[in-house]
Amino acid sequence: MTVTVLGAGSWGTALAILLARNDLEVTLYGRDDEDLRAMASVRENMAYLPGFVLPKNIRVTWEEETLTESDFWVVAVPSGAVRSVLPLIPGEHPVVTIASKGIEAGTAMLLKDVAAEVLPDAEIGVISGPNLAVEIVRGVPTVAVCAFAKPELADMVRGAFMARSFRVYTGTDIIGIEVAGALKNVLAIGAGMSDSLGFGDNTKGAFLARGLHETAKMGLALGGRLETFLGIAGVGDLFATASSRLSRNYRLGSLIGGGIPLREAQEQIGQVAEGVSTSESVQILARKHEVPMPTFEAVEAVLRGRIAPMAAVNMLMERLPKSEITL
Amino acid sequence: MTVTVLGAGSWGTALAILLARNDLEVTLYGRDDEDLRAMASVRENMAYLPGFVLPKNIRVTWEEETLTESDFWVVAVPSGAVRSVLPLIPGEHPVVTIASKGIEAGTAMLLKDVAAEVLPDAEIGVISGPNLAVEIVRGVPTVAVCAFAKPELADMVRGAFMARSFRVYTGTDIIGIEVAGALKNVLAIGAGMSDSLGFGDNTKGAFLARGLHETAKMGLALGGRLETFLGIAGVGDLFATASSRLSRNYRLGSLIGGGIPLREAQEQIGQVAEGVSTSESVQILARKHEVPMPTFEAVEAVLRGRIAPMAAVNMLMERLPKSEITL
Repeated sequence: MTVTVLGAGSWGTALAILLARNDLEVTLYGRDDEDLRAMASVRENMAYLPGFVLPKNIRVTWEEETLTESDFWVVAVPSGAVRSVLPLIPGEHPVVTIASKGIEAGTAMLLKDVAAEVLPDAEIGVISGPNLAVEIVRGVPTVAVCAFAKPELADMVRGAFMARSFRVYTGTDIIGIEVAGALKNVLAIGAGMSDSLGFGDNTKGAFLARGLHETAKMGLALGGRLETFLGIAGVGDLFATASSRLSRNYRLGSLIGGGIPLREAQEQIGQVAEGVSTSESVQILARKHEVPMPTFEAVEAVLRGRIAPMAAVNMLMERLPKSEITL
Repeated sequence: MTVTVLGAGSWGTALAILLARNDLEVTLYGRDDEDLRAMASVRENMAYLPGFVLPKNIRVTWEEETLTESDFWVVAVPSGAVRSVLPLIPGEHPVVTIASKGIEAGTAMLLKDVAAEVLPDAEIGVISGPNLAVEIVRGVPTVAVCAFAKPELADMVRGAFMARSFRVYTGTDIIGIEVAGALKNVLAIGAGMSDSLGFGDNTKGAFLARGLHETAKMGLALGGRLETFLGIAGVGDLFATASSRLSRNYRLGSLIGGGIPLREAQEQIGQVAEGVSTSESVQILARKHEVPMPTFEAVEAVLRGRIAPMAAVNMLMERLPKSEITL
């Protein structure tokens, strides 16, 4: 079985290693830069996933013209690069698994919709869950969910990834899974802010519950299913991300809560923290679908420096409705 | 307005302080022991909530005969003491707010059902949420939910607690709120085990998502509503408890994950960790209502020393279903 992973950051590399350990023939494609050339020769992603040797059955490449048909494709580039990387996929009905978690900036489109626009004849699915890259390659017990419209494709991709320490469920709610995976990055930023401001676990618990509630409302408005938000890709991913120093979005939030401006915080993090761009897109979606999302609004306002973190928390506390809004 | 809080542990004391800060006339009742007598004279709960002075409008008492009718009552004793403390409540139609989080051992009854059995003419409601006691009295921004069958009672209790840093929603799903609050203590034990075994955030995220999913299934079987589990009392409380060193249940789980036997761990924690007894009750409920709860089963088996923590994790990983179970 052959697979090509587009994107050689920590996430793409971790997925490539997983697949290679299962004896697939893996092509790992990344941008032609110094890091990638080093990775191809040293057989280790020293920039983003240091300490793990790439198995022999991973071919590292930055040459587009060497990409040939694969049994399936994994897209693991930042959301902002998804549209430009998809045309590299050849073949009539490629099977494309979106592993990126985000919303396209500007258009505020889900990535599966971007893929459907660029590759109208592709079979498009998603893989998601509480999946910190470094923990996966370390063999920490991990669960993911994989969804395609056609169950047999979900089964195929599931089989390719399945390992003793990486268990994969199948699902069908592509929309819900994408929304949950994208929006939790914004909440992780908020959680990092809350922690670095010293707010404690009560505040964070309330913030995340409100945020997940708003996420679910948006997911339902876009056509997702409620139970997805209570599952691995919803609550599970949020739990893993919103309290983990391993999460870039959480760390970015901590820095901003500590008074560091956005641009400087982004430089310190190095790799893309998806939540920053997703946060802006969520505001577009909230207006378009008329879903009130005060929690996300507050994170966005703090991110762009429009209000101070403390003021945001007070605003949120005072704007709480009298009764819990129903879904 | 008058209120009596039954139970003078950290939780009852914190709630009494909140109410007293809102100028209610508060009676705080606890067992006649050395700690309570010290508390009455020193005006501080040195055993369970040190560092916070009791406002003057809290009367501390251990004399049952001095308990008189109150506008409402708050029950904040360990679940095992709820049945024996309820008969102390006088009056024809007392308003009783259950703040304890647990299930009665032996009968596996929800506490609101215990209350209805002991006080058939009482109005029974619940208050819950991500509410670590020490954070509440410190003024950490906190959100809770309060539910009664009669909305005007929920409004009254809400008004009594409401403060700048303690916001209260009203709700109506008493069953869902009770189930969520009780069962999360078992999951907090599991989370503590997972962390102390070094399993990382992926594992904990998956564990908590599965556990919340099972909690919701049980909640639905008992008559609760799905969205409660996505709310403040569900996800919110689980977030706060399952990653907090301030949670007794989490700390107990950490100790057990570190190889310390249950009884010794309980002694080290001091106060009751409700999850231990709830864990047993959940198994009774799971059998009775035929709800599969493998995550809870695993925690219970480890708690009682029937299997090693590592074996439980492996068992859980291997027993995962192929597709996410729908609710």
